[in-house]
Amino acid sequence: MINVGVLGATGAVGQRFVELLSDHPWFNLTTLAASERSAGKPYGKVVNWRLETPFPEKIAKLKVTAITPSAMKDVDLVFSALPAEIAQDVENTFADAGIAVCSNASSHRMEPNVPLVVPEVNPEHLGLIDVQRDAGRDGFIVTNPNCSTIMLVSALAPLRKFKFSDIRVATMQAISGAGFAGVAAMSIYDNIIPYIGKEEEKMETETLKIMGTLKGKKVVNAPFQVSASCHRVPVIDGHTMAVWVDIKEPVETVKKAYADYKPPIKGLPTQPAESVHLCAEEDRPQPRLDRMRGHGMTVSVGRVREGLRFVAMGHNTIRGAAGASVLNAELISKKKYL
Amino acid sequence: MINVGVLGATGAVGQRFVELLSDHPWFNLTTLAASERSAGKPYGKVVNWRLETPFPEKIAKLKVTAITPSAMKDVDLVFSALPAEIAQDVENTFADAGIAVCSNASSHRMEPNVPLVVPEVNPEHLGLIDVQRDAGRDGFIVTNPNCSTIMLVSALAPLRKFKFSDIRVATMQAISGAGFAGVAAMSIYDNIIPYIGKEEEKMETETLKIMGTLKGKKVVNAPFQVSASCHRVPVIDGHTMAVWVDIKEPVETVKKAYADYKPPIKGLPTQPAESVHLCAEEDRPQPRLDRMRGHGMTVSVGRVREGLRFVAMGHNTIRGAAGASVLNAELISKKKYL
Amino acid sequence: MINVGVLGATGAVGQRFVELLSDHPWFNLTTLAASERSAGKPYGKVVNWRLETPFPEKIAKLKVTAITPSAMKDVDLVFSALPAEIAQDVENTFADAGIAVCSNASSHRMEPNVPLVVPEVNPEHLGLIDVQRDAGRDGFIVTNPNCSTIMLVSALAPLRKFKFSDIRVATMQAISGAGFAGVAAMSIYDNIIPYIGKEEEKMETETLKIMGTLKGKKVVNAPFQVSASCHRVPVIDGHTMAVWVDIKEPVETVKKAYADYKPPIKGLPTQPAESVHLCAEEDRPQPRLDRMRGHGMTVSVGRVREGLRFVAMGHNTIRGAAGASVLNAELISKKKYL
Amino acid sequence: MINVGVLGATGAVGQRFVELLSDHPWFNLTTLAASERSAGKPYGKVVNWRLETPFPEKIAKLKVTAITPSAMKDVDLVFSALPAEIAQDVENTFADAGIAVCSNASSHRMEPNVPLVVPEVNPEHLGLIDVQRDAGRDGFIVTNPNCSTIMLVSALAPLRKFKFSDIRVATMQAISGAGFAGVAAMSIYDNIIPYIGKEEEKMETETLKIMGTLKGKKVVNAPFQVSASCHRVPVIDGHTMAVWVDIKEPVETVKKAYADYKPPIKGLPTQPAESVHLCAEEDRPQPRLDRMRGHGMTVSVGRVREGLRFVAMGHNTIRGAAGASVLNAELISKKKYL
Repeated sequence: MINVGVLGATGAVGQRFVELLSDHPWFNLTTLAASERSAGKPYGKVVNWRLETPFPEKIAKLKVTAITPSAMKDVDLVFSALPAEIAQDVENTFADAGIAVCSNASSHRMEPNVPLVVPEVNPEHLGLIDVQRDAGRDGFIVTNPNCSTIMLVSALAPLRKFKFSDIRVATMQAISGAGFAGVAAMSIYDNIIPYIGKEEEKMETETLKIMGTLKGKKVVNAPFQVSASCHRVPVIDGHTMAVWVDIKEPVETVKKAYADYKPPIKGLPTQPAESVHLCAEEDRPQPRLDRMRGHGMTVSVGRVREGLRFVAMGHNTIRGAAGASVLNAELISKKKYL
Repeated sequence: MINVGVLGATGAVGQRFVELLSDHPWFNLTTLAASERSAGKPYGKVVNWRLETPFPEKIAKLKVTAITPSAMKDVDLVFSALPAEIAQDVENTFADAGIAVCSNASSHRMEPNVPLVVPEVNPEHLGLIDVQRDAGRDGFIVTNPNCSTIMLVSALAPLRKFKFSDIRVATMQAISGAGFAGVAAMSIYDNIIPYIGKEEEKMETETLKIMGTLKGKKVVNAPFQVSASCHRVPVIDGHTMAVWVDIKEPVETVKKAYADYKPPIKGLPTQPAESVHLCAEEDRPQPRLDRMRGHGMTVSVGRVREGLRFVAMGHNTIRGAAGASVLNAELISKKKYL
Repeated sequence: MINVGVLGATGAVGQRFVELLSDHPWFNLTTLAASERSAGKPYGKVVNWRLETPFPEKIAKLKVTAITPSAMKDVDLVFSALPAEIAQDVENTFADAGIAVCSNASSHRMEPNVPLVVPEVNPEHLGLIDVQRDAGRDGFIVTNPNCSTIMLVSALAPLRKFKFSDIRVATMQAISGAGFAGVAAMSIYDNIIPYIGKEEEKMETETLKIMGTLKGKKVVNAPFQVSASCHRVPVIDGHTMAVWVDIKEPVETVKKAYADYKPPIKGLPTQPAESVHLCAEEDRPQPRLDRMRGHGMTVSVGRVREGLRFVAMGHNTIRGAAGASVLNAELISKKKYL
Repeated sequence: MINVGVLGATGAVGQRFVELLSDHPWFNLTTLAASERSAGKPYGKVVNWRLETPFPEKIAKLKVTAITPSAMKDVDLVFSALPAEIAQDVENTFADAGIAVCSNASSHRMEPNVPLVVPEVNPEHLGLIDVQRDAGRDGFIVTNPNCSTIMLVSALAPLRKFKFSDIRVATMQAISGAGFAGVAAMSIYDNIIPYIGKEEEKMETETLKIMGTLKGKKVVNAPFQVSASCHRVPVIDGHTMAVWVDIKEPVETVKKAYADYKPPIKGLPTQPAESVHLCAEEDRPQPRLDRMRGHGMTVSVGRVREGLRFVAMGHNTIRGAAGASVLNAELISKKKYL
């Protein structure tokens, strides 16, 4: 068992980490770190548990620590649910202190020597860990993409055997993506907000890195163009997206590629039976009905039709955030990077 | 004043017709027709008024008639809010009986000699009325497009000066588009339904006809390709859409085209000050805040950015349905077709 | 293992029955009955599975039968999710054929010799089964109350030690209570409907029977007065209610009664650890966060304060419908009535 | 014309004030005051207009001032949309400076010499203005009640001819009552929050003062007991409440009292044709359909039935806040207190 901690354990993504890690077969959740205000108090007293699953009582008495390596001495790996502006420095500090950091924050994603990984898509990019180590660091940072990007690359992975270069994607993103207090009810009820700060840029750049090729010590971006249009909609969990890809093969060939798809890794505890599920119904995927497929880790694809067009959907705070980071940690562990 | 009637006056679009016509400067609403069950009873007794505006009391005592030309003798023009499967024959019967029909139904839209008109986009297509008359009919049928198509062509009209041929559009459509009982709350709450029957086909074909050219007695389709992906979202009124058009001009040139745009007609009572409004804010248009712009008749466009991408939004049961038909009737009247 | 069937297996409550029974330790779900249209086809082909939990694949191939005792020969007990107007006769037919019927329908609830039971509240009312048998019937009917009534009596049960006679209750009921298609989105979105047909009458009469006393062969109603005001609100699952009871004891005494409460039965598989949970937080219970407590079988109570006032909430299609019926069947089985 | 200003002009209630005053027949809106951050800038630049009605363009260039009497020299009356914690001192400062203050804030409502007025209910309480003046103040403060209290007292006013003393009220309150950012979407979507800070206390105390009797220089509280249970529900605008009153008269007598009701004042510009509307339909009032009755100033009552029970509903930011204050100012003006 590997001792792990969570940085930013009281927020929306932090609570998902706690939910996923409280009973994990490989990881032992020993430390929960949060803001100074909470430090020293039992987690059960400071967290306002907002998930629909029961609060994991055995974690309730764990004392919250400060977000510093010295306060988290017994951990080998930390999961970061920190806001980007804080994560930049804090995650460096942890990595410098010899700790493995699996981060959901955007701060380090696009750095050349930091792997940006979705295990079912580009597990080989973990090779960049060696580049970090060669640079003299004891620990390292591994990141997972933005929540929308994860759904997109997961849905594109089975299509890599086809030739394409032009991707358009219009997203309909859930309110939980902005955190518990991120979207006011008055702003989104009976409404759509056709703008999410930096989201389109993230989808357009992260996709190219993830689907790029690790050559020697660096990743060569995929030769794609991604054009995104991002919208917030009144849905609690689950990011839906309409995608166009310039694949010329017949629709049935593409559907078969989904049906036959086997991801390049297997056997990770948090990995779902299907990384991508192809919906047979003409009106699916739907976020409320499909987001918990594969315990929230499966991306559902449907309406594959001429154009080539399809709809992809996945749970944004599980598959798109905490679950993605946990899966990265499992891959790191399996590949003996710890 | 021209005497007018409404066919299907108790449904969602029918009530919008009543709302728009109860105090119209050119039209005198004398007849409300509905199913046999309601015929003979006062409108105020049979309608379950579901609009947020007050019920027009002066209409309350009007006796509902059957949906036949003989029951509606004093009218020169009828507005049809009938379901497509009924509209096909009924509208023909009215036109054969010498009555002008302004229809919101899809039944006749794609017939070669039936104008499919948005006054600010293709008023000259009314010329097809003469083709109908030359064929020996006393009355005629004029149609308006599907609600989503109207938003799209209204947003494209100011861009006709640029060269383009490839349009992608992902819609986020309001529940009122399916009528009062069309979408169950259990189906759409906290959810998205990524499928609306025949909607994509309508957008893809109607757009080409509307933006086509009237040559002699027929319309030559526009040389475009439209690829649509249609989704139902939990919004009451207002269809939002993310659009890509392959225009190469700089974003600022496109914005200027919107800002400078003057539609080819003016002076119709239901016509808004702006047929298209360009939003300055980075997070607009939003359906709840912008759908009532221009009394629900203005299409709002925003987020014009490289790609070329933008977002368009308009009120689906006013601009996209009843208001569109009334505007067509006003154009017909002004052009002396009655 | 007892062989059981479900009558009306494709609707909202029917699907909950299937979900709860597909892996039950005492019951073997062998037969699914639905309308003639579906009969003869595999359940997986005819059901439009609308629950957020995965479809139980092992049930998919079970052939749907007609709703008649002859078509369901191998079952000893059926669960009825039929609409009230059909349930009246059909349930009698099954009971006459020697089959035990656990019904969620309202048809037979108020009949003098039919037990209306919530196991944690009035298990002894099952004694009425003998009255049915004495009347010459081979099978019998046992009913559970209306969804709102269940929450109310569950919350009142721990208070029976106090004297009270005047109950006021204002409900805020979820849309799933009306079935999948029962409430149109246009009716309830951004809205409240302050009327649910027959709901207030059900709460006012059923409560008195359930909390009444079995004396000999009949139930003497409780000496209460219940005054209900029922409202539909835009919540998917979970009925919330504000309750006033004329208890004079101090608030702390009442809270202690909740904290110390032990229901009169225990050891049923579907029974939750707590039949009633007293929330400590000042802003709970909340339907989205608390409805799945005890796998949806626990009623949550909060805000106990002077007046005496409190708020109660429970999952209406689990605790308030299918789960209630399954719990009744478990009690029947344990009490050897089968 | 009387020159007026708004304190706190950019918030949810402040924007409603601007909407109601921008074209008022008696009041000339000359000054908009907001936080220091906004002072000196044109209103159109600092306000994020969130109402569904068009922004009043003629106000756009008005420069925002600081919230001090010296910065608002030309006004005779100010409307206060300030938060309670600020309003306490600021409103005193304005009143001391000789300015009439019509406040929507709770700070001064319960002070013995401050009128707490709903014009259709207790216009005579304005007599307390003289008490303030006798105490040496040049200006004065007049308050309107909390939004929920207004609906309750408006619905009770026509019933004063009957004897009653025990009122129970369960509210279902809209999210706009908490301001634009007051409720997070993640908190209220698919949910109910059964707690609103201090709301129950306000309803229970304010009602007694408003319905009390002005005797000499003070108000004697009404001999009622009000017991409130307050809940936030996912509705944008419109507070709904289930009410019990211990009136013994027959339901029809009570209905007649509503139908015949004439409020004690008339002729104020913002006053609706009906202060209370009795709904004939069994499923009304409904917030989305009825909140704009009387331009948002009419309280709708329905479901009057034995118990005595009824449902009341009104627009919380118009009738319940800004409109209430404007109506008070109109009464003050008509009664020559300025």
